[in-house]
Amino acid sequence: MKTLLKNGYLFTGGSEPVRQELVVEDDRISALLAPGTVVEADAVVDLQSRAVIPGFVQTHVHLCQVLFRGRADDLALLDWLRTRIWPYEAAHDEDSTYLSALLGCMELLAGGATSVCVMESVRHADAAARAMEETGIRGVFGKAMMDYTDTPAALGGMPDAFIETTQESLDRSMALLKRWNGAAEGRIRYAFMPRGILTTSEEMLQELCRLGREYGVLVHTHACETVPESQLVEQRRGLTEIKYLHRMGLTGERLLLAHCLCIDDEDMEILRSTGTGVASCPLANLKLASGVAPLQRMKNSGVRLSLGSDGAPCNNNLDMFQEMKFAALLQKGINHDPTWMPAEDIFRIATEGGARVLGMEGETGVLAIGMKADLAVVDMNRREAAPAPLSVSTLVYAGNPGMVTDTMVDGRWVYRNGTFPGLDEERIRAHAAEAVERVLRRANG
Amino acid sequence: MKTLLKNGYLFTGGSEPVRQELVVEDDRISALLAPGTVVEADAVVDLQSRAVIPGFVQTHVHLCQVLFRGRADDLALLDWLRTRIWPYEAAHDEDSTYLSALLGCMELLAGGATSVCVMESVRHADAAARAMEETGIRGVFGKAMMDYTDTPAALGGMPDAFIETTQESLDRSMALLKRWNGAAEGRIRYAFMPRGILTTSEEMLQELCRLGREYGVLVHTHACETVPESQLVEQRRGLTEIKYLHRMGLTGERLLLAHCLCIDDEDMEILRSTGTGVASCPLANLKLASGVAPLQRMKNSGVRLSLGSDGAPCNNNLDMFQEMKFAALLQKGINHDPTWMPAEDIFRIATEGGARVLGMEGETGVLAIGMKADLAVVDMNRREAAPAPLSVSTLVYAGNPGMVTDTMVDGRWVYRNGTFPGLDEERIRAHAAEAVERVLRRANG
Repeated sequence: MKTLLKNGYLFTGGSEPVRQELVVEDDRISALLAPGTVVEADAVVDLQSRAVIPGFVQTHVHLCQVLFRGRADDLALLDWLRTRIWPYEAAHDEDSTYLSALLGCMELLAGGATSVCVMESVRHADAAARAMEETGIRGVFGKAMMDYTDTPAALGGMPDAFIETTQESLDRSMALLKRWNGAAEGRIRYAFMPRGILTTSEEMLQELCRLGREYGVLVHTHACETVPESQLVEQRRGLTEIKYLHRMGLTGERLLLAHCLCIDDEDMEILRSTGTGVASCPLANLKLASGVAPLQRMKNSGVRLSLGSDGAPCNNNLDMFQEMKFAALLQKGINHDPTWMPAEDIFRIATEGGARVLGMEGETGVLAIGMKADLAVVDMNRREAAPAPLSVSTLVYAGNPGMVTDTMVDGRWVYRNGTFPGLDEERIRAHAAEAVERVLRRANG
Repeated sequence: MKTLLKNGYLFTGGSEPVRQELVVEDDRISALLAPGTVVEADAVVDLQSRAVIPGFVQTHVHLCQVLFRGRADDLALLDWLRTRIWPYEAAHDEDSTYLSALLGCMELLAGGATSVCVMESVRHADAAARAMEETGIRGVFGKAMMDYTDTPAALGGMPDAFIETTQESLDRSMALLKRWNGAAEGRIRYAFMPRGILTTSEEMLQELCRLGREYGVLVHTHACETVPESQLVEQRRGLTEIKYLHRMGLTGERLLLAHCLCIDDEDMEILRSTGTGVASCPLANLKLASGVAPLQRMKNSGVRLSLGSDGAPCNNNLDMFQEMKFAALLQKGINHDPTWMPAEDIFRIATEGGARVLGMEGETGVLAIGMKADLAVVDMNRREAAPAPLSVSTLVYAGNPGMVTDTMVDGRWVYRNGTFPGLDEERIRAHAAEAVERVLRRANG
């Protein structure tokens, strides 16, 4: 199967797009040609001067929380967790988890994200993988692992449904890994996802270090999200979160840490020297009042960076355009320098950066010959961008998901002219609306 | 003329909308009725469960800068001003100013804003008023007044085209006031707009104080935007900006100050006790690296607050949804409390708050009987908001201009099913694209 995308402006790097014809053969970009080059193809798509960008790579998303969008706003963090997110997540069934993930994948694809790293709940992670398989998104997923609750009394109230023994947690993770790692022609990969240090035993971390290496899969966890939690880790484990993970042998190119807000210079040097990946979530960090990650400083230090939207209840969207804009503007405003985090840098972090931290470098995240055909078609000729030039800074500062008309993953159109081929969006949303009522009823007892 | 808007969910205050039928007679809301009430009307619009919100009130926008969207990104502040914004603004002609304002008004209306406070450039302010008249938006506008350049050498480079004598500036402002104040059946009002303290002579400020009172019009200026500028004002005029404006007799309900970032407790008390209005511009303050305004503290103190997008080159949109979300999230994140600036508060600031600082309280900014019919129809049944409840927090945290389907000002549809009745948007955008080339050529030439 050979598809020609003609008359488009391709963002292949740099600050402005180039006029080139793009050829997709099967799942990969096979050629980038001078404008007007005649190519025999099975399908020809006239882009009519629209732009093509590499698909965004969202590196920290809780798909199971999409169902709870708008149900936990303006709350103190402990209320947010104890009265909403934990009980809601614990009340999920297989079907509600599946619908939540479907909605999330659809929002991601419609916003130009072609890859995602998904941290699911302790149970029903299978359902998220099915949604990823069916929507056609590329991604890494894992079940949350929680075999330990070394939490202070204030953090009590964690639902029983979350607690597993170390062995149960490992067995269930391994079963998922065996079922899903490499599934859908390699589009879906598994990762071990201990939820955080305070909810993971030292024994399990050691075992994950070994298993991660043995199977060549990522370990993904939350780290350094808030000062109180970081201090608690230091109290309980005797080291800062980063230094502790480093001592446990987990740091490295197969470790991806969400947040990394409260880190010191030594932590940053460990992240850099080991090639550990960071998934920064600027909107969620603000909404949950954690603060602002030192993104520019990490970048200057050479830390591998990426962006994620976290969960719908702490955002409330899965929208890489907003993450890019907030991330760049925050770095400028907080650090009083408007040249910090320029558009080109944050765009690269949102695409190529994400691919790197997920171990998909050279596969996705850039438009180049030989790469997977993971891309989004963007109509920049819109009212809210007029009369701005076609440039990366227009994408970052005036872009939005409404500009995305089509999204391709693995050479296949998974979002086409505003709809999802093969999916009945209306029906899915109707079922999701029923599911949220059922889950909230169950959670509220 | 009587219009019935039926089967809608009306945001009339509180956290959730109510199911009511809304009746518009001529330019005002004449009734809010129980669902299903039968009403004889000249026109009946079935909202099909969409929501209706009071139109947003944007209180600080430079419409003449819309043409320069995306032309001044990631630059240091002085480069931004001296190499881009000043020369570009100075190179405007009447027609390019008009097209820039047209684009701006269209973006505002399409994003659900029904009122705007417009600070134009020193010249061609007439053109902006024409655009406001033709697009049907409600608003206050004024020409920038600059009769003085008490700026340090570093701020040199201001184009000659900006400099007027005090008398020229006053005469030109008075001519605009006489022509436009109360025009379009009262929809357009004039205001005196000295650009900032450092570019206004003491004599002119005194005269504006007198004229503002005599004609009952607003005075609108920038104040306390950056620390260096604030320090310079204190050096030159012997007082902080707020205290200086207070001594000059300008503070009060007819003064509207854009920004107010760097203010102390005494300044805040002056703002509160005098009823002086503040137009906060959270995105612009970040993009230009000024910082974060103490919005929640001002609110706690009882200062009258509103929101604005400032100019397209420092934003890069005129989008109240983004301003609300950024404003609320910033207050939470920076102050480490997720309960700060809840959705209901920021929504009220974006609507009723704006109306109050523009002297339009009781006219616009809320959906209530007797108010002007200034409203937007919002489709909240969208992918990016699914399956969130119909609530103010969904509007604030998951809302976007793409949800706005129709906008009404003064009882007239000025944006209907995604288009502007009576305006040829395609032609306007084509002309604007030509105009920006012409202006940039002139500025660079």
